[in-house]
Amino acid sequence: MLIVGELINASRKAIGEAIKAQDADAIKKIALDQWEAGADYIDVNAGIFVGKEADYLTWLVKLVQEATDNAPCCIDSPDPKAIEQALSVHKGTAMINSISLEKERYEAMIPLLAGTDLKVVALCMSDEGMPETADQRLAIADKLINGLVQNNIPLDNIYVDPLVQPVSTKDTYGLEFLDAVQGIMTKFKGVHTICGLSNISYGLPLRKKINQNFAVLAISRGLDGLIINPLDKEMMANIIIAETLMGRDNYCSNYLTAYREGKLE
Amino acid sequence: MLIVGELINASRKAIGEAIKAQDADAIKKIALDQWEAGADYIDVNAGIFVGKEADYLTWLVKLVQEATDNAPCCIDSPDPKAIEQALSVHKGTAMINSISLEKERYEAMIPLLAGTDLKVVALCMSDEGMPETADQRLAIADKLINGLVQNNIPLDNIYVDPLVQPVSTKDTYGLEFLDAVQGIMTKFKGVHTICGLSNISYGLPLRKKINQNFAVLAISRGLDGLIINPLDKEMMANIIIAETLMGRDNYCSNYLTAYREGKLE
Repeated sequence: MLIVGELINASRKAIGEAIKAQDADAIKKIALDQWEAGADYIDVNAGIFVGKEADYLTWLVKLVQEATDNAPCCIDSPDPKAIEQALSVHKGTAMINSISLEKERYEAMIPLLAGTDLKVVALCMSDEGMPETADQRLAIADKLINGLVQNNIPLDNIYVDPLVQPVSTKDTYGLEFLDAVQGIMTKFKGVHTICGLSNISYGLPLRKKINQNFAVLAISRGLDGLIINPLDKEMMANIIIAETLMGRDNYCSNYLTAYREGKLE
Repeated sequence: MLIVGELINASRKAIGEAIKAQDADAIKKIALDQWEAGADYIDVNAGIFVGKEADYLTWLVKLVQEATDNAPCCIDSPDPKAIEQALSVHKGTAMINSISLEKERYEAMIPLLAGTDLKVVALCMSDEGMPETADQRLAIADKLINGLVQNNIPLDNIYVDPLVQPVSTKDTYGLEFLDAVQGIMTKFKGVHTICGLSNISYGLPLRKKINQNFAVLAISRGLDGLIINPLDKEMMANIIIAETLMGRDNYCSNYLTAYREGKLE
């Protein structure tokens, strides 16, 4: 399971303020905390700062890597120019969050990705908007994966995000997403799937528990990447338990190690 | 989701002692607590009392129904004579726990069940022992369901228990069970599936969280009955959330009702 730590996002109030105040220590702390909690990539997003996004994003990448002995970043922006500038200071192999099938975004991102060993999040979004059904997601994933592979991005570097939509909007939205994960993982052997979870519980009370349970369901369908708060111990415990229950933990050794390290309580 | 409250089981120390001491108030309290927490059936088991099982079981049925204004019982015994005696005082339609494909048990139970409107738990166990794979479970379920239907027990009254085995014993035991649930619910439309959960976590630390997550996974495969402790609020919350996430909760109304009633915290 690949974990992307989602906390360094300027749309979160404390982070937005820290970026504005250029509070390096605050950013470094949250980077290190996520890294130590088990994140594989640290997401950096400065999207709210129009005109300054590229500079701030670059600053965030530097700080995160200073704090964590060069943990890889997940560079989170729709703007290829901002990504390029941030990449120029990034050490190691970054993940790009994200490309989509929206024509403008797709055409701007492909040159940046083509032939590189960058990891990339491929959003199941097109100019027709958000997909609703599993089939619509599969159709978009098909086009995205083909396009990326034709541009020499290996399947193993592609993380398809089928896009979670709120179950409060339509009863079947959870199920359509889960079916899409299973469909993508079955049809495109070797590709990965990833998602953020919080949309699933939008508009409902006690969102955390819904998100935690939805993670378990998505993992059971084959999802192998999550963009989450790695400091949420319940969530991290659920991920370990789900993998153990799905037969992906030899002799329950991950579970038992996590238990001994106090990660399950 | 059909919930069978599992707490009135003589193998639990407090219950065994209450039965021995003929402490009616203790039994009635635990019956009422489970009923009020949302159990649909109250399991009664006096199996440890050799020679006295039938009398104790009958006593338990009377007490449970007195305490709960005639909640239906799940009469839990391998002995048809004990079940028959307990049934003689039971008001309404009981569930029988259980028949299996073990020849002796099967032949003793069929006459008791044939042509009645009793609900019955059908254990996927044969004289060859516990099944390991999903296919083995499906083969036993097939024979059990056919036998029961031929004896005029409607499909809707049959609750197949595929039998949970510990994931600590073999990595794939969770998965084989889940695949069996899905197979049974797909192949035998109209039949139900039910199980206890605690075996899944046997031999591992922090069993509750494993059991709670396994419930979510089993529900996602179609399981529609659980033999659990209905006083475990986390478990009951997970069941509601799982059904909501699987698209079985119109407008999230069960979830929102449970929230307003304080059942999710």
